[in-house]
Amino acid sequence: IDAEAVAAAEAAQAGLAKPAGALGVLESLSAQLAGIARTCPPAVPAKPAVGVFAGDHGVLAQGVTPWPSDITFVMCNVFQQGGAAINVLARAAGASVTVVDMGVAGPFAEGPGAEGGAELVSKKVRPGTADLAKGPALTRDEAIQALEAGIEVANTLIDGGADLLITGDMGIGNTTPSAALIAALTGTAADVVTGRGTGIDDEMLAHKTSIVADAVARISADADGVEVLAEVGGLEHAGIAGFVLGAAARGIPVILDGVIAGSAALVAQKIAPASVGYCIAGHRSFEPGHRIALEQLGLRPLLELDLRLGEGTGAALSVPIVQAAARILTEMATLASVMAGGQ
Amino acid sequence: IDAEAVAAAEAAQAGLAKPAGALGVLESLSAQLAGIARTCPPAVPAKPAVGVFAGDHGVLAQGVTPWPSDITFVMCNVFQQGGAAINVLARAAGASVTVVDMGVAGPFAEGPGAEGGAELVSKKVRPGTADLAKGPALTRDEAIQALEAGIEVANTLIDGGADLLITGDMGIGNTTPSAALIAALTGTAADVVTGRGTGIDDEMLAHKTSIVADAVARISADADGVEVLAEVGGLEHAGIAGFVLGAAARGIPVILDGVIAGSAALVAQKIAPASVGYCIAGHRSFEPGHRIALEQLGLRPLLELDLRLGEGTGAALSVPIVQAAARILTEMATLASVMAGGQ
Repeated sequence: IDAEAVAAAEAAQAGLAKPAGALGVLESLSAQLAGIARTCPPAVPAKPAVGVFAGDHGVLAQGVTPWPSDITFVMCNVFQQGGAAINVLARAAGASVTVVDMGVAGPFAEGPGAEGGAELVSKKVRPGTADLAKGPALTRDEAIQALEAGIEVANTLIDGGADLLITGDMGIGNTTPSAALIAALTGTAADVVTGRGTGIDDEMLAHKTSIVADAVARISADADGVEVLAEVGGLEHAGIAGFVLGAAARGIPVILDGVIAGSAALVAQKIAPASVGYCIAGHRSFEPGHRIALEQLGLRPLLELDLRLGEGTGAALSVPIVQAAARILTEMATLASVMAGGQ
Repeated sequence: IDAEAVAAAEAAQAGLAKPAGALGVLESLSAQLAGIARTCPPAVPAKPAVGVFAGDHGVLAQGVTPWPSDITFVMCNVFQQGGAAINVLARAAGASVTVVDMGVAGPFAEGPGAEGGAELVSKKVRPGTADLAKGPALTRDEAIQALEAGIEVANTLIDGGADLLITGDMGIGNTTPSAALIAALTGTAADVVTGRGTGIDDEMLAHKTSIVADAVARISADADGVEVLAEVGGLEHAGIAGFVLGAAARGIPVILDGVIAGSAALVAQKIAPASVGYCIAGHRSFEPGHRIALEQLGLRPLLELDLRLGEGTGAALSVPIVQAAARILTEMATLASVMAGGQ
């Protein structure tokens, strides 16, 4: 991001009609937006777009969640109809929702959304990953294909006018690959980063943790980002990592949702460290690994409301804060104008 | 608030197309809104209104802040012109702003706002409080008059269609009476609740803390809410306490801003404990006393973004979250409809 625009925003904040620093995180966020836009003040984001990346997971064979993988395609249909939480929160934020089939195992038909619902787009790489407990989840070629699909989705949305991207995910079992990605990419022990996802008991958690630990142990210390992604990741994680890379390449800010996005952003960071400068952490989820991921990314979450749903819900909920940060730079009076008695 | 409507909202949340509890604080907030509205689902708040209560403080004679009291009336003019942070954030939230002169020492002229600015209303009780370091800040009659003015402002806004009230404040020096109110009403030591306000050094902080401690020591253990308010409060604190009482009496939710509102809500709680049920903590400010106040109120803040500006900024920034909580109950599909294949 552009250091001169960041400095200009910091200087502008110091000259607004308020004590220096009194708007806290809104001030640093406004400077980041200026840096991303490479100009100060940055335009207020007016056309946010959620990309919900969906996929299934071979590791479900190991019993890491009580939910069946069919929920993944069922929820994609709910997204299309407009009745899911992300539809509600995206409508509230004035954001479009595009659901991307990266690797749904069940039926998924491309098509426009119902009134207030999401468009469904297919970028299916394969119908679910292989079981990461038994070997690589993806081949290297599949991982690259999925990353490229995420980049394509970002480009399509930006070409359509989107000026703020929002990550979302849907995939039963996807906190297991997230924990593995975070463990591998931050060097943290599996039992620290593995959580209960959408609600599992102590026994299932211990089992899930040992699967994560064993899978991560297969990864060599000098593995690159694509190799880590292929070994223990998911197709929606790959799509989101590509989405982040695509947003960064186009100079558009991207709001990360919860632990799935956090783990995917670590992959993007490993591939292209500068991509993190374009990321905003929409919220911190209840999952323990998310905190570890955000620390390594150097991102402070805008919201901490104990959400653990995914879909992009926490990120969508933070859109007004991002817009407000830009508006402050654009619309507030300066101290100089107040002192001069004018406005 | 209505326990049946709360229970109905909790039952409704459990039946929506998501895992139970996965929307965290949005779920409990939606239940509170249902309880306040006495029906489930509650209407989505559509007409939020900020009341910015302004006043000056005799304790400025003691040197508790580097800022001159003239800033209070100058900022009221900025509010009217529309260039202050609260104007920007209120416009972003679709909220009106009304600035109420509770006790501004400088010139203050009632009148409508400029385009995008705030209306100014006078309820002046006296031009600033007496010096709380030397005796009561207000007489009991003045405190009651100021509480009644706050109730009147709430009634006027609600009669005008407001369905969500937002507290704001302006008053140079007003973190000193806030610290004293919090110390007195929570039984917490002055050095724990007294903070740096808008930026003071160690020496001034020690002086401010001793003033708070000495003033609180004058209050008898059996003092009622009005007595505490009169002894160590401020006129804007009294106005906000009345605003909260007025909102609660009319069954309208009220979002509290920072430490000034937190201390004022403690006064409202002391006078009418049930009023807290109508309060939502918009954010937690940087001031140390705010955490203590929120604990006693039993409120969890929606945002923690290190804001320390006042004016209602943190509360205005939280409006979309409150609206989103209500929308979830209104617009999300149920699990039953998803299972049945319909929407």
